[in-house]
Amino acid sequence: MAALARDGGVALRPHAKTHKSPVIARKQLALGAVGICTAKIGEAEVMVANGIDNVLITTEPVPRNMDRFIALAAKARLSVTLDDADIAAELGRRAAARGIVITTFVDVNVGQERTGVDAGAKVVPLVETVCKTKGLRFAGLQGYEGHCQGIKDRDTRRARARECYDRLSETKRLIEDHGIAVATVTTAGTGTARFAIEHGVATEIQPGSYCVMDSSYAQVEPMFENALFILASVVSVQRGETLVIDAGWKAASTDAGVPAVKDQPDASYKEAGDEHGKISGLAGRHRAGDVVWLVPSHCDTTINLYDRYTLVRDDGSLEGELPIATRGKSA
Amino acid sequence: MAALARDGGVALRPHAKTHKSPVIARKQLALGAVGICTAKIGEAEVMVANGIDNVLITTEPVPRNMDRFIALAAKARLSVTLDDADIAAELGRRAAARGIVITTFVDVNVGQERTGVDAGAKVVPLVETVCKTKGLRFAGLQGYEGHCQGIKDRDTRRARARECYDRLSETKRLIEDHGIAVATVTTAGTGTARFAIEHGVATEIQPGSYCVMDSSYAQVEPMFENALFILASVVSVQRGETLVIDAGWKAASTDAGVPAVKDQPDASYKEAGDEHGKISGLAGRHRAGDVVWLVPSHCDTTINLYDRYTLVRDDGSLEGELPIATRGKSA
Repeated sequence: MAALARDGGVALRPHAKTHKSPVIARKQLALGAVGICTAKIGEAEVMVANGIDNVLITTEPVPRNMDRFIALAAKARLSVTLDDADIAAELGRRAAARGIVITTFVDVNVGQERTGVDAGAKVVPLVETVCKTKGLRFAGLQGYEGHCQGIKDRDTRRARARECYDRLSETKRLIEDHGIAVATVTTAGTGTARFAIEHGVATEIQPGSYCVMDSSYAQVEPMFENALFILASVVSVQRGETLVIDAGWKAASTDAGVPAVKDQPDASYKEAGDEHGKISGLAGRHRAGDVVWLVPSHCDTTINLYDRYTLVRDDGSLEGELPIATRGKSA
Repeated sequence: MAALARDGGVALRPHAKTHKSPVIARKQLALGAVGICTAKIGEAEVMVANGIDNVLITTEPVPRNMDRFIALAAKARLSVTLDDADIAAELGRRAAARGIVITTFVDVNVGQERTGVDAGAKVVPLVETVCKTKGLRFAGLQGYEGHCQGIKDRDTRRARARECYDRLSETKRLIEDHGIAVATVTTAGTGTARFAIEHGVATEIQPGSYCVMDSSYAQVEPMFENALFILASVVSVQRGETLVIDAGWKAASTDAGVPAVKDQPDASYKEAGDEHGKISGLAGRHRAGDVVWLVPSHCDTTINLYDRYTLVRDDGSLEGELPIATRGKSA
């Protein structure tokens, strides 16, 4: 991904909501990333405490947690995203009171229908408010096309993503027509990064999943390899051809479907509660205690279930452990 | 639940996989529980390290983690469940080598079709093996009727559960016919505890969810009150009537459906990714920063996402925090 961004002439700001590890973030920075994203202030606090100096928090602050944004902005290069004039006024007031200026992106809804001001003319007044607000500095636009990431057909995904980038281009033009420079346009994920680069409006991409991948993204973007697996044990062979393993909802997230069985396309996983899963279609004889490797369907939410990674070399040797330091920081 | 068990003349062994807190476990013991259950050895280790002396681990050991079972059994009153003769032989060998005897339940499949030897005559040979194995002591049967817990119609749930208890009765009789005493029969969850008591075969019940409840169990067993909530913030009001909140898959498990909105039967939650959710149907005007309380659909897996509880009195005052000490111990 670093090479893709470098060759495409855009900045890479990996989304650390996937890996949740300051160690991996530092490796991404060493490979040329300009900084990282986190989804929440709680993740950013841990990243800054672990030496990461440049963080964009991609979810809007609210009054309840705003003082934590201010405190962190006072000690690191923090950027925030806003879609609300009241929040902008309050954040600016608190930043100015502290004597700091917060780098601010205006969040644009490019079609995901989640956060963000609708793309187009409605964005301009908020940009003007940010520009006029003491304590804030307008840095550009964030327009995440999350609804495009999982579209399996490449051409459809590209076409849908380009619609979003066109909306960002148009919005940018409208802002510039008001004499305001849009220095940075940040967007894209693992499924669309190459299309954002190709289109040209983005100056920065913020993909996350590429660093470890999962079975869902593997169907969308085969450029990157799966590096994340769940090690499970067969705990019961009493159900005939169906093996019962010790990996259930507490071991593998299912929001994007069930995990796959590594290197066993004919085998399938079935949910069996918090603590168990069932595996069908594994050839051969099995005994209680046998090991089964799973490929998570969704890396971010599966990683969020664990306190640490176990690192294994391609030759199977144990390399060490890595804390999942921002795990559970959902606020 | 303590009163239900006491009045019904059965032992209560709450399943601590729900709350994951040694502090709550100690409160349950103080109210008369004979011990606790955990699903995995990792949870049991934390419970014992925090002063809980009597733990039944409801998932079978495997050779990979067996030495941890042995080490824990050497320092606490640990019970295990088995459904496999090879595992029984190996566990007995390692226990005997350490000079200890492990309290062993034979796990019976009463219809859940997960772990356990099929109820009936097939159980007897494994019981005989356990009885003959040095290092193991046969304590009785575990027969969890997990497939009955969520049946909404009370009469159907009762009838299905009674079928399971009848299977346990028949299995117990077959074992006793071989001159082997079955001291303890442990079964039941929050949805079936009263039916297990009424039937009579169970000497011990192992419900978990009753201590905090959730929106799924509330539809099954209205005797217990919801005590578990997720505090979320509105982060965007740009989508008209739909509020965007900061609670997504990392804040609320969805394996049993989406969370409910507390005290707002007309409001509904919709999934919007790892970090966000959407709320529809909330009356009134809303601003970014407003607070929304959610009721988890499934307590065990939602609690597993957090490192601590915040404790709030009925009057809204803050009582303190409680570590979720066995969080993430899925193995």
